[in-house]
Amino acid sequence: MAVGVGVIGAGTVGGGVIELLLGNTDQIADNTGAGVVLKHVADLNTAALADYDLTGVTVSNDAMKLIEDPEVQVVCELIGGEQPAKKFILAAMAAGKHVVTANKMLLAKAGPELTAAAVAAGVELRFEAAVGGTIPIIKAIRESLSANHIHAVYGILNGTCNYILTRMQEEELEFSDVLQQAIDMGFAETPPDLDIEGHDTAHKCQILASLCYNTQVDLEQVYVEGITKIRLLDVEYADELGYDIKLLATTRKIDGEIEARVTPTLVPQEHLLASVRREFNAVYVESDFADSTFYYGRGAGKKPTASAVLSDIADIARAQGAAVQPPFRYTHQLDVRAIGLHRGRYYMRLTTQDHPGVLGKVCSTLGRHGISIASCFQHEESDNNPAHIVIMSHYALESSVVAAVEEIDRETFITEPTNVVRVLD
Amino acid sequence: MAVGVGVIGAGTVGGGVIELLLGNTDQIADNTGAGVVLKHVADLNTAALADYDLTGVTVSNDAMKLIEDPEVQVVCELIGGEQPAKKFILAAMAAGKHVVTANKMLLAKAGPELTAAAVAAGVELRFEAAVGGTIPIIKAIRESLSANHIHAVYGILNGTCNYILTRMQEEELEFSDVLQQAIDMGFAETPPDLDIEGHDTAHKCQILASLCYNTQVDLEQVYVEGITKIRLLDVEYADELGYDIKLLATTRKIDGEIEARVTPTLVPQEHLLASVRREFNAVYVESDFADSTFYYGRGAGKKPTASAVLSDIADIARAQGAAVQPPFRYTHQLDVRAIGLHRGRYYMRLTTQDHPGVLGKVCSTLGRHGISIASCFQHEESDNNPAHIVIMSHYALESSVVAAVEEIDRETFITEPTNVVRVLD
Repeated sequence: MAVGVGVIGAGTVGGGVIELLLGNTDQIADNTGAGVVLKHVADLNTAALADYDLTGVTVSNDAMKLIEDPEVQVVCELIGGEQPAKKFILAAMAAGKHVVTANKMLLAKAGPELTAAAVAAGVELRFEAAVGGTIPIIKAIRESLSANHIHAVYGILNGTCNYILTRMQEEELEFSDVLQQAIDMGFAETPPDLDIEGHDTAHKCQILASLCYNTQVDLEQVYVEGITKIRLLDVEYADELGYDIKLLATTRKIDGEIEARVTPTLVPQEHLLASVRREFNAVYVESDFADSTFYYGRGAGKKPTASAVLSDIADIARAQGAAVQPPFRYTHQLDVRAIGLHRGRYYMRLTTQDHPGVLGKVCSTLGRHGISIASCFQHEESDNNPAHIVIMSHYALESSVVAAVEEIDRETFITEPTNVVRVLD
Repeated sequence: MAVGVGVIGAGTVGGGVIELLLGNTDQIADNTGAGVVLKHVADLNTAALADYDLTGVTVSNDAMKLIEDPEVQVVCELIGGEQPAKKFILAAMAAGKHVVTANKMLLAKAGPELTAAAVAAGVELRFEAAVGGTIPIIKAIRESLSANHIHAVYGILNGTCNYILTRMQEEELEFSDVLQQAIDMGFAETPPDLDIEGHDTAHKCQILASLCYNTQVDLEQVYVEGITKIRLLDVEYADELGYDIKLLATTRKIDGEIEARVTPTLVPQEHLLASVRREFNAVYVESDFADSTFYYGRGAGKKPTASAVLSDIADIARAQGAAVQPPFRYTHQLDVRAIGLHRGRYYMRLTTQDHPGVLGKVCSTLGRHGISIASCFQHEESDNNPAHIVIMSHYALESSVVAAVEEIDRETFITEPTNVVRVLD
């Protein structure tokens, strides 16, 4: 039985879905045995639809009409943002329609409400495209790894940040220069804050944490640091130490609590996550039976995102007759661990006046806070004032590192705040 | 409704599945909403089951009893090999049981017969563990990429071969030395021919080609070269040129035909496939909408393989009530392209007497066959007789390369057959 699809929002992703539904329907039927047919497109700007041959497809500028269209069984919400997206999704579900969305912000903010509505209506709410674009990480966690206890997930989930960090490293450019170029090329959003401040990654981190541990996670509980504090010299020092800097979403289970955080992180260059360059995304998962698995692909873009949306639609088509699966299962109530309790290794870059005794004072302050030093260097440079001291710690408690660095940064020989970056275990 | 599982064969993989079903049932129910319960284990050697707490589980030494057990809805065939595995699978399907298997050899040899039997019986035959172990590549192709036309798949699918090639490179060891160590450690099968001659990879290549292109592929049509011809000096020359040597399964669609081949291949060191070390497996897929995606994990081993088997069981449990999916869809009849028609770049290592005029003669022979040279070197060595000439060609036709090398190898100055290795595009 063919499934009728309605697409709300014909922007980049929506346009890709329309293109895919018009171009590859034979392929979908061939691979799934289920017909999937575009029946209705709704966009405020119907003129933008002139690029597509929508013969036989209803076109409207009213999403509610699409939702009420009896020929539509699956509604794709592809406008993004909180409202009116949420209103449309809730209305579609109330009307008994399955929903597919790529809306990570809305899922991260209203997961429990949307889940309750989907369960009450007995419909599917699927969102493969919301995290990692075309990477099937939602399916991997929900289905492929469903028999596993997941220990940890590390994701590179924002293409703009990864693009900036890659170009800084490859071309020795400063953060602000690459960002400006990315904006000029229309590659980064304007304003870029949602990306570079880490919030987009935090939305995805919240979704992954909720899925992996079947628990409600308040978005506010996800600790977020963006990449704006990363300077070219940090990228270069990290490289010298054998690391790349990546913006990682991390979610782990530790002592019955979960970690959910977004942080720039030093990743060893031999780790698979370090080989993720430019705008690509990837997710590394550790679990008890499957052990390490890794998934890589394009995290954004018209066609890759559309491919993920279509995989959800095809799954819904194939699953007709089976019990509906809830988008999230909140079967546990786990606390989110405070960031201060994080234990790990730390990269610290201190900017100091080049006076005698500075290194000794820094080291003794760290020691007093229980932080021991794994390696340390200060390069002799032509212009050595201020000088940079780079320290890699052994395992240490985050709150101790914060306290030690606060104390160090009060010293008169410190000329700008010390940059602290976590290191991947 | 809980699904009853029967496990035929309690060897490495079967033991892992038993362990997982006994240990992680809560996790499976938590993640899928479907109960999965171990009901029956059959093994010729029931004494080997003493390690497990099988209270409440029927144990027998007769697989047919398990198949007839009314409490069993899903039969896991985990004994491998052609017979009696095939007999058990066909009997289980005839009895209306769904089947999960990791038996790549049987699937590669009897895909159409098993598919016809599954369709006739209206049951599922699933095999995520058969290719790439814990890597969800079957699911990725069947579901995640179902809206895509797949251009190409490149897989590292045999852990033993990848382990040998990695250690040759990392530790400068000869092939035979690493192989012997792997056998001594119980890591490689004895005899190791199925692995090192490429046949195990060919089984997996056949399965991927059949799935990607929905066409029957005779196993005999899959071109196979193993890794036994790779010498340490080839690994070192490749490294010098910026490549790692990997045993790749390749399936692609070209001009309405498909390629399906297993060949040692020079992979650029910046390619993700080059970062797959030791016994790990990985698959790189290129498709029209999703673009490049990459999947990585353990290709073998008790727990990782069991995780993949359980994902199939969980999928069957979840899909109850929906239309059954056939294991393969043979909706197309595509020819398998002859290897001689392959066009690509080639690495050639010639072993020659160090005479004047040798290089000129080699180059003019290649030129006469339409093969142009991208790079070439011969190192000055302390013991320079025989000398090695290493040539990287531009794009060339395989049949021309074969003809040229045959002609070159007839020259009296050539002291051993020239080693030709394909290069990843």
